[in-house]
Amino acid sequence: NYSRLERSREGLSGAAEWSSLRALLPDLSGRRIVDLGCGYGWFCRWARDHGAERVLGLDVSERMLTRATAMTSDPGIAYRRADLERLDLGTDTFDFAYSSLALHYIENLPGLLAELHRALLPGSTFVFSVEHPIVTAPIPAGWSVGADGRRTWPVDSYHEEGPRRTNWLAEGVIKQHRTLGTYLNLLIRLGFTIAHVEEWAPTHEQVAARPDWAEERERPMFLLIAAQR
Amino acid sequence: NYSRLERSREGLSGAAEWSSLRALLPDLSGRRIVDLGCGYGWFCRWARDHGAERVLGLDVSERMLTRATAMTSDPGIAYRRADLERLDLGTDTFDFAYSSLALHYIENLPGLLAELHRALLPGSTFVFSVEHPIVTAPIPAGWSVGADGRRTWPVDSYHEEGPRRTNWLAEGVIKQHRTLGTYLNLLIRLGFTIAHVEEWAPTHEQVAARPDWAEERERPMFLLIAAQR
Repeated sequence: NYSRLERSREGLSGAAEWSSLRALLPDLSGRRIVDLGCGYGWFCRWARDHGAERVLGLDVSERMLTRATAMTSDPGIAYRRADLERLDLGTDTFDFAYSSLALHYIENLPGLLAELHRALLPGSTFVFSVEHPIVTAPIPAGWSVGADGRRTWPVDSYHEEGPRRTNWLAEGVIKQHRTLGTYLNLLIRLGFTIAHVEEWAPTHEQVAARPDWAEERERPMFLLIAAQR
Repeated sequence: NYSRLERSREGLSGAAEWSSLRALLPDLSGRRIVDLGCGYGWFCRWARDHGAERVLGLDVSERMLTRATAMTSDPGIAYRRADLERLDLGTDTFDFAYSSLALHYIENLPGLLAELHRALLPGSTFVFSVEHPIVTAPIPAGWSVGADGRRTWPVDSYHEEGPRRTNWLAEGVIKQHRTLGTYLNLLIRLGFTIAHVEEWAPTHEQVAARPDWAEERERPMFLLIAAQR
């Protein structure tokens, strides 16, 4: 389950894409930050260690927030239970927003992004990662290995946006498939400017250290986006 | 060969993605336009019919330019042979740029886009289409049909950018595979603002009229981008 994942046990350095995501971050000194889907709070603590003024970590799971709270002793970090399907940031304002691998679970992404845009001050940055649409599209999803040993990721149903049921981590988790164009155009229409789009793959060095990651150079696995408010 | 393609014979309306590309165009009235890879000049003539002040159509193929010239009687359109690998727009300036299914053949895309950015006036729009990176990535590329009849587009080699040899239209045509992130980040770094990203698929109405297009809802086939200078 979630607590046994490398990224849950080891924190940010256990996440293969962290160094790429980190490269998209602005200087966090003095920033007031919201983390959408903070899990165990690894990024909240990292941000404070890197100068953030305060961090609000939001997650729908009480269990995760309990773990996050137990791992945190820092008055600059607040954790709060929030359903991102109906996000309400109240009168809080932020100048940096972050989200790691959470938004592809959200059905009402237009509503969430509109509320986030409202609460971000002009000039703010928003950096987030999701599973890449090429990964979420196929029904069913899975690698294919040919008779010649060629490993491919078969794509279908790309343009059929909507729920995808998977049995990853827990039975019947529902992800929301969206095209890459939909992610970008949602942001653009709200007034965000696209600053960088990264389709994550492990570097050759990472593959040398972790040969089981080699297949992730065949397909785009994660989508990392930096946008300016 | 090229002259037998529907889009070559029938012009813009013979191209399945034309209505989507057209929806991304600004009002062309009074615009000075450059068309990169103009082929038979269908778009050049359409642009003049829709108010463009003058259109420069560039193509590497003398044979295509001869056909374009034969089909055109309009002093507002000039055709010129140009190798887009070493584009030089001289002292000309433009306030709209267009390119249809040409840029995925270009090795020196950074050079081409830098030269285009230089020749476009601030506020100009650039609209172009390429084969989608999911289409250009696989080696070899081709649909797969499973024992159950499921049709998928197997992806591999996505992160290995560079030449792809195909036998489409002519033996050994070389396309340049780039990730979607690379296209977008090239534009952004040059100073373009991404205005819209469309991963083209036929509409359900188009599939009803042309059942052989149904498979193109399984994968993203074309990438259409509108950017602001």
